[in-house]
Amino acid sequence: MRNSRPFSKPPRRTVFFAALAALTLAAAGAAMADSLLIKEQGSFFVGGRTVFTDALTGSTTGFLGTGVNSGNITVDQMYVQYQIPETADSHFPVVMIHGCCLSSKSYETTPDGRMGWNEYFLRKRRAVYLPDQVSRARSGFDSTIYNEIKLGKRSASDMPELRIADHELAWLIFRFGPTMGKAFSNEQFPVEAFEEFGKQVIPDLNAQLPAVNPTWTNLSLLAIKLKGAILMGHSESGFFPEQAALINPTDIKGLITIETGCPALNSEQSSNLTSEQISKLSKIPTLVVFGDHLEDVPSYPKLWKGRFDSCTKFVQQINAAGGDATMMHLPEYGQFGNSHMLMQDKNSNQVADLILKWIDEHVENKKASVGRN
Amino acid sequence: MRNSRPFSKPPRRTVFFAALAALTLAAAGAAMADSLLIKEQGSFFVGGRTVFTDALTGSTTGFLGTGVNSGNITVDQMYVQYQIPETADSHFPVVMIHGCCLSSKSYETTPDGRMGWNEYFLRKRRAVYLPDQVSRARSGFDSTIYNEIKLGKRSASDMPELRIADHELAWLIFRFGPTMGKAFSNEQFPVEAFEEFGKQVIPDLNAQLPAVNPTWTNLSLLAIKLKGAILMGHSESGFFPEQAALINPTDIKGLITIETGCPALNSEQSSNLTSEQISKLSKIPTLVVFGDHLEDVPSYPKLWKGRFDSCTKFVQQINAAGGDATMMHLPEYGQFGNSHMLMQDKNSNQVADLILKWIDEHVENKKASVGRN
Repeated sequence: MRNSRPFSKPPRRTVFFAALAALTLAAAGAAMADSLLIKEQGSFFVGGRTVFTDALTGSTTGFLGTGVNSGNITVDQMYVQYQIPETADSHFPVVMIHGCCLSSKSYETTPDGRMGWNEYFLRKRRAVYLPDQVSRARSGFDSTIYNEIKLGKRSASDMPELRIADHELAWLIFRFGPTMGKAFSNEQFPVEAFEEFGKQVIPDLNAQLPAVNPTWTNLSLLAIKLKGAILMGHSESGFFPEQAALINPTDIKGLITIETGCPALNSEQSSNLTSEQISKLSKIPTLVVFGDHLEDVPSYPKLWKGRFDSCTKFVQQINAAGGDATMMHLPEYGQFGNSHMLMQDKNSNQVADLILKWIDEHVENKKASVGRN
Repeated sequence: MRNSRPFSKPPRRTVFFAALAALTLAAAGAAMADSLLIKEQGSFFVGGRTVFTDALTGSTTGFLGTGVNSGNITVDQMYVQYQIPETADSHFPVVMIHGCCLSSKSYETTPDGRMGWNEYFLRKRRAVYLPDQVSRARSGFDSTIYNEIKLGKRSASDMPELRIADHELAWLIFRFGPTMGKAFSNEQFPVEAFEEFGKQVIPDLNAQLPAVNPTWTNLSLLAIKLKGAILMGHSESGFFPEQAALINPTDIKGLITIETGCPALNSEQSSNLTSEQISKLSKIPTLVVFGDHLEDVPSYPKLWKGRFDSCTKFVQQINAAGGDATMMHLPEYGQFGNSHMLMQDKNSNQVADLILKWIDEHVENKKASVGRN
């Protein structure tokens, strides 16, 4: 009834309409507070090519017993699911890419049932795009090799290396605690929901992909399709945003690299960068994020420190080349106890806020001067 | 300004509030017309069990070179994505299960970019749940066998039969037209987007699952979790709703079977039903849906007619047992030219309307008398 207060003796009809307006606004407000107003949502594919296979199945009777066991199939396509909030305004969309042995489920509802980053970013007025990596989940994979092995057309040694993390490795490598089943005292990962997390872990078939991972190419195509996007990668895909930009930087407006090893100029990493590549990447604002307890898992004392150091070097080199790169080591930003799965940690919204602040300061606020080229 | 019209000389303030109310309602209306108001959305897993594997990878150096190649992993879990519209009221949620060589992408944006059934049903005030079948897409699969073969612990002949449909088989078997590249004159599938459809087709690993498919069990658990749900299956999963009900009918409120072969009492199908099973299924309203051109693909003249006949028999037996089963052959309901992928056909909304009408008449309207048991 706030709207009617200024008037001492309002006519009855005014009260009616004021009440109507107030109720309508209140209802809309209440709905908006909890509900999501989605302007557009859906899914599509990026990339993909047609190849001939002589092994649709591993059976000589062919597909569904039709006798047909060869033909054209599509491979290397990347499935992308998206939502655009009603309030997205001119913010750049954020593309969130998952890591090893996971799907884009990583960014959805957390194992303990809280809102994932996909929804949190939506509520912060960002369109969100969630790809499944090529050869994973809804993107599918090329099953030809497997069927050829079954049919005796290939040796079993040709089998690509599938990989999956077991529960204990996940606990230790993802830094849920110092030893299996024990959490760090300030651990942010919802370890009480570890069983649910285990269900997210699925086989990783990336080893069967070519040297230039089609996911990288597809991410660069996605940025162009979106006419501007911020790419975020995690763990296995942590450097995928940069790999996409090295293929084609057009319309890639920001690079967010979470918890991975970074190649660098003259580094000891297997895949070094050239000065031309550093120069190319330095044109795009870059954020690198690491959580806590990097050296606190006794079984893997150097794993994360090594990766952190490699990315520190990368950040320095980007800045030395005139770029705008930030190393966000979360404890230095007031967030303690974060695991490798920081988008699922109990303080995931606070970590997201830090990333959103970086986006606003380093990408969005520069739009006016640089335009959406 | 409709609200102010009845008043001949409204005071200025009344006009102001009337205008405010009208504008607010108009804005809300405009937003609602196009935008989606989502009360809740997210994803979770149903089922899943922990097993020990001796082959996390196909490499003797183990996962990420850690030397660890054995441990506990989760298998048989079923990923489920869901959205609940603000206006869901007391309608039962609809669970949409995809077919062979596909993921739940089947029910999302169509290959030619139209709204999928997931969103259409939301707009018709139904909560929608989209599972990926166990061993497919985001549900993952047990990769142990493959790695054991690579490691020489098993023979290549132990490889499960992966299967994928090639483009030509899909065109013919899914009844896009009589011969590859040629569409039926009244074809409803958006054949101009056939290339996009090809990207949805991914390897099917169901052959590695046990005889009682964990997807069936997980679907029955999902209905219980939802405290009532309508299960819809398509093609490979067409009879999954019934299989789930045979495991545990609790909270399964309706069965929708789209384009599949049906087992029946004393039928010639490989998997017959017993009279006890028919009796159990007859307690749940059942809808079977088939599209058009069932006998019009010369290469596979009997495939769909055979399946249609088997389901006709099943429907008759359910009704003979006192049940409420409906055979919806779309041409008899005024919808012509529908393919096997009828949820993606150009008249997909009209087909959805027929299904929604059946739901309202055979499931929702019976709620008052039977209660939500």
